Amino acid sequence: MIRVSIVGASGYAGAELAGLIHKHPEFEIAGLYVSENSADAYKAFSALHGKYAYQIDRTLIPISESQIAKLVPECDAIFLCTPHEASVEMAARIVEAGGVVFDLSGAYRLSDLSVIKEYYGFSHKYPELLTQAVYGLAEWNAAEIRQANLVAVPGCYPTASLSALKPLQEAKLIDSSVIPNINAVSGASGAGRSAKLSTSFCEVSFNPYGVLSHRHTPEIAEHLSNPVIFTPHLGNFKRGILATITLKLNDGTNIQQINQAYNDAYEGKKLVRLRQSWPAIQNVEGTPFVDLHWALDEKTGYLIVVSAIDNVLKGASSQAVQCANLRFGFDSGRGLV
Amino acid sequence: MIRVSIVGASGYAGAELAGLIHKHPEFEIAGLYVSENSADAYKAFSALHGKYAYQIDRTLIPISESQIAKLVPECDAIFLCTPHEASVEMAARIVEAGGVVFDLSGAYRLSDLSVIKEYYGFSHKYPELLTQAVYGLAEWNAAEIRQANLVAVPGCYPTASLSALKPLQEAKLIDSSVIPNINAVSGASGAGRSAKLSTSFCEVSFNPYGVLSHRHTPEIAEHLSNPVIFTPHLGNFKRGILATITLKLNDGTNIQQINQAYNDAYEGKKLVRLRQSWPAIQNVEGTPFVDLHWALDEKTGYLIVVSAIDNVLKGASSQAVQCANLRFGFDSGRGLV
Amino acid sequence: MIRVSIVGASGYAGAELAGLIHKHPEFEIAGLYVSENSADAYKAFSALHGKYAYQIDRTLIPISESQIAKLVPECDAIFLCTPHEASVEMAARIVEAGGVVFDLSGAYRLSDLSVIKEYYGFSHKYPELLTQAVYGLAEWNAAEIRQANLVAVPGCYPTASLSALKPLQEAKLIDSSVIPNINAVSGASGAGRSAKLSTSFCEVSFNPYGVLSHRHTPEIAEHLSNPVIFTPHLGNFKRGILATITLKLNDGTNIQQINQAYNDAYEGKKLVRLRQSWPAIQNVEGTPFVDLHWALDEKTGYLIVVSAIDNVLKGASSQAVQCANLRFGFDSGRGLV
Amino acid sequence: MIRVSIVGASGYAGAELAGLIHKHPEFEIAGLYVSENSADAYKAFSALHGKYAYQIDRTLIPISESQIAKLVPECDAIFLCTPHEASVEMAARIVEAGGVVFDLSGAYRLSDLSVIKEYYGFSHKYPELLTQAVYGLAEWNAAEIRQANLVAVPGCYPTASLSALKPLQEAKLIDSSVIPNINAVSGASGAGRSAKLSTSFCEVSFNPYGVLSHRHTPEIAEHLSNPVIFTPHLGNFKRGILATITLKLNDGTNIQQINQAYNDAYEGKKLVRLRQSWPAIQNVEGTPFVDLHWALDEKTGYLIVVSAIDNVLKGASSQAVQCANLRFGFDSGRGLV
Repeated sequence: MIRVSIVGASGYAGAELAGLIHKHPEFEIAGLYVSENSADAYKAFSALHGKYAYQIDRTLIPISESQIAKLVPECDAIFLCTPHEASVEMAARIVEAGGVVFDLSGAYRLSDLSVIKEYYGFSHKYPELLTQAVYGLAEWNAAEIRQANLVAVPGCYPTASLSALKPLQEAKLIDSSVIPNINAVSGASGAGRSAKLSTSFCEVSFNPYGVLSHRHTPEIAEHLSNPVIFTPHLGNFKRGILATITLKLNDGTNIQQINQAYNDAYEGKKLVRLRQSWPAIQNVEGTPFVDLHWALDEKTGYLIVVSAIDNVLKGASSQAVQCANLRFGFDSGRGLV
Repeated sequence: MIRVSIVGASGYAGAELAGLIHKHPEFEIAGLYVSENSADAYKAFSALHGKYAYQIDRTLIPISESQIAKLVPECDAIFLCTPHEASVEMAARIVEAGGVVFDLSGAYRLSDLSVIKEYYGFSHKYPELLTQAVYGLAEWNAAEIRQANLVAVPGCYPTASLSALKPLQEAKLIDSSVIPNINAVSGASGAGRSAKLSTSFCEVSFNPYGVLSHRHTPEIAEHLSNPVIFTPHLGNFKRGILATITLKLNDGTNIQQINQAYNDAYEGKKLVRLRQSWPAIQNVEGTPFVDLHWALDEKTGYLIVVSAIDNVLKGASSQAVQCANLRFGFDSGRGLV
Repeated sequence: MIRVSIVGASGYAGAELAGLIHKHPEFEIAGLYVSENSADAYKAFSALHGKYAYQIDRTLIPISESQIAKLVPECDAIFLCTPHEASVEMAARIVEAGGVVFDLSGAYRLSDLSVIKEYYGFSHKYPELLTQAVYGLAEWNAAEIRQANLVAVPGCYPTASLSALKPLQEAKLIDSSVIPNINAVSGASGAGRSAKLSTSFCEVSFNPYGVLSHRHTPEIAEHLSNPVIFTPHLGNFKRGILATITLKLNDGTNIQQINQAYNDAYEGKKLVRLRQSWPAIQNVEGTPFVDLHWALDEKTGYLIVVSAIDNVLKGASSQAVQCANLRFGFDSGRGLV
Repeated sequence: MIRVSIVGASGYAGAELAGLIHKHPEFEIAGLYVSENSADAYKAFSALHGKYAYQIDRTLIPISESQIAKLVPECDAIFLCTPHEASVEMAARIVEAGGVVFDLSGAYRLSDLSVIKEYYGFSHKYPELLTQAVYGLAEWNAAEIRQANLVAVPGCYPTASLSALKPLQEAKLIDSSVIPNINAVSGASGAGRSAKLSTSFCEVSFNPYGVLSHRHTPEIAEHLSNPVIFTPHLGNFKRGILATITLKLNDGTNIQQINQAYNDAYEGKKLVRLRQSWPAIQNVEGTPFVDLHWALDEKTGYLIVVSAIDNVLKGASSQAVQCANLRFGFDSGRGLV
């Protein structure tokens, strides 16, 4: 059994990851950790996440950045479900100590230092490590993930968006004179588990946020190699992302070429489902799948592609497990379907 | 007091309209009707809409298309909250009998017979009446509404969309080389009150529908005088529409020009609120307002405009009241704010 | 116009109260206040409660306990939507300065000092004022409310519960050998507007809380003059309370006696609706009504009574307005229906 | 592998059961059926239940009551997720043909013909089979279930209620002079998948239904051997039941006796979780567990017990799997945890 530690197991992605590892036939939990000053330190994991009562009976152990390297000899891999500020440092120390790390934050997803400075507001201390980090979009970067010691697990919106757009970009079907437009809605779990007024029950309805400034914009653009307009919304549901993408295709592109692009991209990739009907949040909630469906407006050459995922799973934890599966020699979907 | 009859008072828009008329200082209910074969005929209105118990104690009277003209002498205006198939005929007979009619269906909103045939599937019997019908977008067509005997009250999505787009179009700021893209989500009340699997509680989550084929697409395009890509979604809430609109502006357009366009359009129009923050469904639920906010991406020249309304009110009933206010000589917002 | 000030206008009850006063034909807002150290001090009221944008354009002014008396000469009445700790002191100072105060907290609802100590955890400083305070259950204490300078507006659960139980108690129908059992569910607004993990969107589902220890238990018991078992639950909706009450009636009580008890109690009381079907949250949401319906199990002599209110309105703000209506000589429902 | 057929696989319980069997290590699906005249006949299972796309790719085959026996030789067990009218006949024919049947309807849960007539409105054709049927409350009737050819899988509310009450009844702690009171709320999936106005999205809020007349009342009473007052409610969520039960204990009962009763009853029963905090719907959603917690009011001798389950799982499908596990020699929780 591959032994893994999870840092940040008090949050939604960390807890879900603990659940996935717990039932995985090849992995087991070595330890569940929270950051040094967490109010949840030394609490029972299942006191926070009651769903796992009598299933995962572990205490949340606090750990500091300076001590993170001590976990390396005790386990085969470390998952960081920590804020990017913590992940920058922890990931570097784990790699330095010879460990394997899957970071679910945005700390190592972008390569351009000035873009990181603009969107995340800090100067990255480890530019050389940025170049070694592999972007863990599991269906697209499997070969590199298998070799990586630092995998930057993609963000939730980028996973939904890139899964829909990359097949078209690879097939060179996108008309670059019109910027692809991504409208997406996420459930409130995307904002994390800490109490905030903006995600308190009575304040959530449906509204855009982070317009023209969300950190996932440059992440999508970099890994698509194409600019995008991205407008995220907060929806009144707990889990799931649905991205509705409108783009213009090169003149004369027909539906067969589009279908072919998707089939080529996802042939044999079991976690991407090319659906015959429009995706719905409900069909992906609690699953590791990406659901995709599209329609071409032949009169105008515009294409509508819709992508749906569970933001906490394919948008975070289950994609992290896919990466770990690949890294340790298993099938990408092992333990997930 | 202006006496009005409501046909189709069993549905959500009709019921809400009855509620608005009931509390309006200038109007009163003459009668509440349902279609001839309605299962709700002769039921108490408040048995269906319990919110109005002890407030509106009236029986739902069935009425046929052939008898609709008999209502004309008994009241000053008739509101049709009926399906378009019924409205086509009823509106014609009311006008012929000298009545004033506000039709909340799509029967008289489009002018092009072939488009009606394509999107609604029937050949319109009264093309001459189509040319007389006034499109009841209250902030834009007030002068014509004041003179009209047949007002086609706009659809919910078109109200949200046109309120956001028309100021830009009037100011000639839209770059026509890119088609404006409207992504909108509506609460389930938009699908009406009849029981359907697609809007049963356990089936609703969040999903697109009517992609590239929704009847509101040509309605928006005609009244904007510009093509649009329109993608509606069903959301897991009862009321409200939020439309997120992405479009390209002519090169060099600056934010001052945009602000000016909106200020010019809505100066003194109390039911349109130019907000300083992004609209949210919650802020318009139960209100007659349109909330608008926008942001310009100066690097690319793309603009994001977001519009929110209550689909049953500004998207149906309260806009119908605005039209009636104008038609009978009152201020547009009389009885609404 | 009666001029009123609202302290604690940043919260849900305070904001709703501002909305009710704003549209009331006899009252007007003198000022909107928050407590001295509020993070919302000097913010625009409508920046917090976007529904009121362009309707109520006022700034939230901070005010301390020591300065509260200065408001007395500037207005005819003061509403306190503050925590009970603040209300204890503020109400005393307002009364001392000759003002009229409506307190929406629990500070003056109980008369027994030891019960206050047990449930609220403090020794009440103003026991003599406690005896002067009138419990503002509007349908039951109208005569005293008309004379009161300090009205303790009832809690939300007590309003729902007492409205259902008092008619039976007055008619001496309750079999005291079985303790009446109140099971109630409240929307999340009942927990107030501050951000808490327990009412963050992803944590709310449906669960009991405060079992056998909720502060509303002694409030119900005192004003019913009968012990009760009260079990509150948090539901996944924003507004509304539904209380399902099971009790045993004296042997031989028949349905006519029960109907008579309710009719006697609520004859001419327009805000209590004796319904012909079971109450539902949806029918009272956004209204000032109490909906009641009951059924007798003739085999066992047990009665089920169900009561529904909007917790923020009849359970707080609109009942406060009822009290103010009575105090200033208007009909109880003035401005509310 | 044990091969099973599911009749009524188009509904929510049937679909969930198909999902459980699909991933179960000891069982496999032999066929998925719907009733003879179902509108879903010959549709793809995953077209109805999109969650299972690419996982369970089977067609729904229509089958009549008269042909049901033909399934017996083709599989080891048949699950009936059909209405009780169909189950009465189908179960009888399966047993007659030598098959093993798990019926999820109410057809074989009650033993008293007059009670069946009163609550279900029909005269049961197979009274002798009623006496052979085993009530499939898995934690309580394991020995009989292991021998049964006809298992009547309990209803959702009875499962929640009996799990909470039977330990106290077995320990003879209940004071029979007060009737135990069960207040429960169920998600809308409990009403089944067919479109109805009462469970359409815009009609659901929170309300009681079936007061004093619900079919689960005699089911609970019979299997508890004690009368109960049972008041079910419809909640605005998809899945889950929470039952709040109030009862009086014999004079002098202390908390140790209560704790002992629960420990004795559920020692080693992994699917019943004796929690240290109050159950919440969210903690059991998607799980096969019953969560229980209780508190004693020492002053009055009343006990509050709260029970939570997923109505579609422990209240239907996963309990059916528990029964099948027992019947075919596996551990009760095999394939479920």
